[in-house]
Amino acid sequence: MPQPSTFYRPITDECAIFQYAFAQKLPLCLKGPTGTGKSRFVEAMAERLGRPLVTVACHDETSAVDLVGRYLIRGGETQWQDGPVTRAVRAGAILYLDEIAEARPDVIVVLHPLSDHRRVLYIEQRDEVLAAADGFHLVVSFNPGYQRGLKELKASTRQRFVSLAFDYPDVDVEVDILVGETGVDRKVARRLSLLAQKVRKLDHLGLAERPSTRLLVDAAKLVQAGLAPRRACQVAIVESLTDDPDVRDGLNEAVALAF
Amino acid sequence: MPQPSTFYRPITDECAIFQYAFAQKLPLCLKGPTGTGKSRFVEAMAERLGRPLVTVACHDETSAVDLVGRYLIRGGETQWQDGPVTRAVRAGAILYLDEIAEARPDVIVVLHPLSDHRRVLYIEQRDEVLAAADGFHLVVSFNPGYQRGLKELKASTRQRFVSLAFDYPDVDVEVDILVGETGVDRKVARRLSLLAQKVRKLDHLGLAERPSTRLLVDAAKLVQAGLAPRRACQVAIVESLTDDPDVRDGLNEAVALAF
Amino acid sequence: MPQPSTFYRPITDECAIFQYAFAQKLPLCLKGPTGTGKSRFVEAMAERLGRPLVTVACHDETSAVDLVGRYLIRGGETQWQDGPVTRAVRAGAILYLDEIAEARPDVIVVLHPLSDHRRVLYIEQRDEVLAAADGFHLVVSFNPGYQRGLKELKASTRQRFVSLAFDYPDVDVEVDILVGETGVDRKVARRLSLLAQKVRKLDHLGLAERPSTRLLVDAAKLVQAGLAPRRACQVAIVESLTDDPDVRDGLNEAVALAF
Amino acid sequence: MPQPSTFYRPITDECAIFQYAFAQKLPLCLKGPTGTGKSRFVEAMAERLGRPLVTVACHDETSAVDLVGRYLIRGGETQWQDGPVTRAVRAGAILYLDEIAEARPDVIVVLHPLSDHRRVLYIEQRDEVLAAADGFHLVVSFNPGYQRGLKELKASTRQRFVSLAFDYPDVDVEVDILVGETGVDRKVARRLSLLAQKVRKLDHLGLAERPSTRLLVDAAKLVQAGLAPRRACQVAIVESLTDDPDVRDGLNEAVALAF
Amino acid sequence: MPQPSTFYRPITDECAIFQYAFAQKLPLCLKGPTGTGKSRFVEAMAERLGRPLVTVACHDETSAVDLVGRYLIRGGETQWQDGPVTRAVRAGAILYLDEIAEARPDVIVVLHPLSDHRRVLYIEQRDEVLAAADGFHLVVSFNPGYQRGLKELKASTRQRFVSLAFDYPDVDVEVDILVGETGVDRKVARRLSLLAQKVRKLDHLGLAERPSTRLLVDAAKLVQAGLAPRRACQVAIVESLTDDPDVRDGLNEAVALAF
Amino acid sequence: MPQPSTFYRPITDECAIFQYAFAQKLPLCLKGPTGTGKSRFVEAMAERLGRPLVTVACHDETSAVDLVGRYLIRGGETQWQDGPVTRAVRAGAILYLDEIAEARPDVIVVLHPLSDHRRVLYIEQRDEVLAAADGFHLVVSFNPGYQRGLKELKASTRQRFVSLAFDYPDVDVEVDILVGETGVDRKVARRLSLLAQKVRKLDHLGLAERPSTRLLVDAAKLVQAGLAPRRACQVAIVESLTDDPDVRDGLNEAVALAF
Repeated sequence: MPQPSTFYRPITDECAIFQYAFAQKLPLCLKGPTGTGKSRFVEAMAERLGRPLVTVACHDETSAVDLVGRYLIRGGETQWQDGPVTRAVRAGAILYLDEIAEARPDVIVVLHPLSDHRRVLYIEQRDEVLAAADGFHLVVSFNPGYQRGLKELKASTRQRFVSLAFDYPDVDVEVDILVGETGVDRKVARRLSLLAQKVRKLDHLGLAERPSTRLLVDAAKLVQAGLAPRRACQVAIVESLTDDPDVRDGLNEAVALAF
Repeated sequence: MPQPSTFYRPITDECAIFQYAFAQKLPLCLKGPTGTGKSRFVEAMAERLGRPLVTVACHDETSAVDLVGRYLIRGGETQWQDGPVTRAVRAGAILYLDEIAEARPDVIVVLHPLSDHRRVLYIEQRDEVLAAADGFHLVVSFNPGYQRGLKELKASTRQRFVSLAFDYPDVDVEVDILVGETGVDRKVARRLSLLAQKVRKLDHLGLAERPSTRLLVDAAKLVQAGLAPRRACQVAIVESLTDDPDVRDGLNEAVALAF
Repeated sequence: MPQPSTFYRPITDECAIFQYAFAQKLPLCLKGPTGTGKSRFVEAMAERLGRPLVTVACHDETSAVDLVGRYLIRGGETQWQDGPVTRAVRAGAILYLDEIAEARPDVIVVLHPLSDHRRVLYIEQRDEVLAAADGFHLVVSFNPGYQRGLKELKASTRQRFVSLAFDYPDVDVEVDILVGETGVDRKVARRLSLLAQKVRKLDHLGLAERPSTRLLVDAAKLVQAGLAPRRACQVAIVESLTDDPDVRDGLNEAVALAF
Repeated sequence: MPQPSTFYRPITDECAIFQYAFAQKLPLCLKGPTGTGKSRFVEAMAERLGRPLVTVACHDETSAVDLVGRYLIRGGETQWQDGPVTRAVRAGAILYLDEIAEARPDVIVVLHPLSDHRRVLYIEQRDEVLAAADGFHLVVSFNPGYQRGLKELKASTRQRFVSLAFDYPDVDVEVDILVGETGVDRKVARRLSLLAQKVRKLDHLGLAERPSTRLLVDAAKLVQAGLAPRRACQVAIVESLTDDPDVRDGLNEAVALAF
Repeated sequence: MPQPSTFYRPITDECAIFQYAFAQKLPLCLKGPTGTGKSRFVEAMAERLGRPLVTVACHDETSAVDLVGRYLIRGGETQWQDGPVTRAVRAGAILYLDEIAEARPDVIVVLHPLSDHRRVLYIEQRDEVLAAADGFHLVVSFNPGYQRGLKELKASTRQRFVSLAFDYPDVDVEVDILVGETGVDRKVARRLSLLAQKVRKLDHLGLAERPSTRLLVDAAKLVQAGLAPRRACQVAIVESLTDDPDVRDGLNEAVALAF
Repeated sequence: MPQPSTFYRPITDECAIFQYAFAQKLPLCLKGPTGTGKSRFVEAMAERLGRPLVTVACHDETSAVDLVGRYLIRGGETQWQDGPVTRAVRAGAILYLDEIAEARPDVIVVLHPLSDHRRVLYIEQRDEVLAAADGFHLVVSFNPGYQRGLKELKASTRQRFVSLAFDYPDVDVEVDILVGETGVDRKVARRLSLLAQKVRKLDHLGLAERPSTRLLVDAAKLVQAGLAPRRACQVAIVESLTDDPDVRDGLNEAVALAF
């Protein structure tokens, strides 16, 4: 059953790097802020390489057991149920662990023998060693800006991955994305992107995170639905970036200049 | 079976924004202090859009399992029981997660694939991917004032939502609400609302939270039951806002001026 | 089977306030230090209103499950067992949650839909919404002095309750209570109460809590049993209030002046 | 089956206070440092009053469930097993909770309805209210010196108890105890007690706790077994009180002066 | 089946003290740094007294349940399994709790009634009181140097034990041990011991712990296997004592002077 | 079934030390930073000595139960399942606990009786003492640089091991490894190694960890796959070592000088 190809607009040579790493069985780490297309990139590469994709969004409580599998009791018998990592290893899938730095430390240990020359998964509870099927490839992502001072990947873990840095696209690329995803008028798209570029440089505002392309897409969709652009920017961009009245006023001024 | 329409008095264009966001499948975040009508607004919009409403009041220990579902043991067999998010996803309901910032971090991860173009729910324990039924819409609320310095939504999560700010109503609207909900005399209602407006501006009192319309409704109800207005304000408003004798005296003076 | 009426001596208009709040279905919060009769007041009002009373003494580990109910395994089947809140909701009882600020945060969430216009209890594990029977009324207590700087009710929760402040009784009322509860000689009772009044004002002693009427009742009972009043005050009052030798000496001097 | 009477040497009027409190059903709190005979006192009073004694040594993890009881699974059925408090309540026993301040906070809540006029035990898991049998009496102990700055009983809990302070005995009493318990020569006993009195006053040594009569009993027993008194004091007293070489030398000098 | 006698070389009168304490049923606490022969001493005394020995190495998570026993589910029935303390109490064994200060606090409480005149074990889960069989004796160890500032035995617990201090042996004793355990040349043994004596005095190096006789035994064994003494000292002693390059250089100089 | 020999290039006398320690049954501790060949060394020695190898990658939550084994419920019966340590002890295998300092403290206690003259494993849950089969040998690793200030092995545990320090190889050895593992051109390999040597000395960059040979292997593989050397160094080395823009620029300059 053919899947529609995922829309992905390459920025530099990231597709080539992915393919080299895949060919050499080198695990990949995608670094960069929210909304810079890391997940979409992995989806597109999985399609291009013809591999199934298994995605896990990691969080504070993601543990090795969640990933590898667990015993369930059914009909008085304990039955084993594969977790997503085990499924990916068996199927030779691209395994994408999103925000890996969020996960509990035992997750890293599961990945060690999968990320080096062994390419095996130890399933401790079953006392089983599972060799990764051909085509299995490990990809992780993390957000260095967000993690600063909080959670970090151990340096020794970092060294197990080839690393690709992602960042916000420049205006031309971003306009392509906005038009491609929402059908919004090209001029509105450009104004949205220019507004975002401007806000991304406003370091003195102390925003916890800069506006992603995702926010612009939301604003463009509201415009397409009929909302005035200025109001769309307020609810999709400004109110999502801050709760501080002064910062909000500053951002709203920037919006008013744009539209 | 027709449901009586929920009483909701719009403040600005929030109903339009909700409808645009619903049409474009953009999840919505309602920001604002306690008692500004966020929950009632969601109830009213669910009715207007003809969608069932599933509400979850989040707290410190609300976890993904609570929302998605769990296995129970019945008659020696494990049986799956849907949680409220799963029910909402299946039914195409409006899902309202009240005070989302209170919940445990794994909840956010459940919401990620529901809040972007995928609109799916991963049920890890069942190894199932559930596509949201038509009409499903995700709405969350949080209270920026209360959360300050404590719990915050991650900036990267905030960017997944179109955001609407709520605040206390002005006097005319508040009087309408008081009369509409309690049948209290219009003059008493106005005095109550003016009292609240005054107290909401008394920053130097150091109140943890400003008086909501809910407190005024309580006071109005006690007046309707026969209690003197001044005493009603003391027990419904003053004693609920503070335990500090000096602040209490200050508030009681304001009450004495009002009635 | 008629129950003997609980002895309760009203201080001001607290019985009227309780009745107004009950009539208007407004939940009630009783604030005040230990031993000022809050529990006894609720018992008396439940009798007067002819409602059953369900009391829960909350502590650090009181959770929603403790209050709402849980599944037990019996004969290989899971059976549901109602908790005290569920029993109160079904029976239309007065539900009294003593020291509510001590409980775990998920308890507050259980109370939200019970404390507003919905008057329902969500039983998540059973996926059941239970409407409160007629006569159900929610009453909570907390001790602002003790909690200071430690545990507080969230301001947004406080606004869900009409609040009544309790304090130590004045001498005449306290003497009535002592004589009524212990049969002690009226003169001894008066001396005990005057001693307590004096100690309650000794801020410079740094007592963690001031002596309650309960302590006086204990001393009076020991006197009735035959112990000398001075010694009764030492073991029932002084040694219960402090372990500091200097403070103890100061309090013992006050006792020696009284008897 | 007659039990041999426990050896207990009263210090002041503590036996009378216990009996008055027992007669008036007032719970009792024994305060004082380790090894001052609190436990032995309770044993002796239980014998004198002809009541069974149930003792619980509390610690950091003593919880309500440990005290009240729990469900066990036996033969596929859940069976209830009484905990020590429930057994004491049913049997009308003296219930002695040693070092109550160590226990978890939910223990205090269990004790509240047992310690006031209700004299009942709420068994939440069974939804049962158990009235205390005649003769039930609640006694707790805690060590104010040890607890200082660490764990304290809440002031509101303290006010539920009549309190008796215990301290180290004076020389004559202590010599009686040493001779009575070990059969040691009266002169050796006196030297041991005088040594202890001296060390108890050496505040500048910074000992975490002063030597109890128990240590003297140990030393006396080693002497009775044939060890030289000076060496007996070293291993039974000095090495148990300190690991600091300088403090050890200072204490050993005191021992050398004594023997 | 006769057991070969454990090699133990007494330092002072520790064997006599153990026997007196055993005769008088006084529990014993062995204090001292790692590798000073505490465990071996207990083994030797158990043999000499003809008692079985039960050893438990305590750690951060050793709990009362680990020691006393627990219910297991077998064939649908819960069956009780004795823990090591219960086995020792039934068998009249020497019970040796190594590094007792590491264990969780509930362990201490289990030991209280075993360590005083009662000599009983409360098995709470079975509601059983088990009297210790004749010959039961409680011995604990802890390392005051290591624990400093971290974990301590409560002073009130310390007073329940007769205490024996252990330290590193002097050169002659240590040489006997090295030759006896490894068969190494007496001259090499003396050089190893003199090296250790020297290092044990180097306070300015800031070593976390001084070299034990165990390290010397390891070095001697490597020498016996054919490794050059200097290299044997490096890998068995120096690299085990420090990871700091400067400290390592200092220690290696001391090694070079010795061999 | 013959296994292909593991490629391992000895640095100094580490193979001899391993063999002496193995012969004398002295447990071994491998110290050193990530990627210096500790794991590969153990694999090679296990092959050379003809022993099976059991490897456990330790992490924050590795507990004694994970290592020793646990009871599982199967068909209503509890069945015991050996953990990796128990399997190694039974099989006389080399047991390699990688990053032992990460594990929970109860793991250390399991290792104590395995690491001294007893060579036994206590399986508490089965009340079983298992003697290690001939050929069993315990090897652990830890990373002193990474652990600094965080997790440390207790000094008393360190003294149970003969210790071998590992460090990055010098250029000639590293070139051999790069060519041997990837087939990269010898000149490129030399440039990669010289680049790494240079970066390893750049203390002022504040890198959390210095580049390991593993990173060079990754870069060499990407070069072999067709990527330009400079770009290969950027994604395999620079982006894996830092997220700081300034540090990245500095490293990229070093790369530009190398290629």
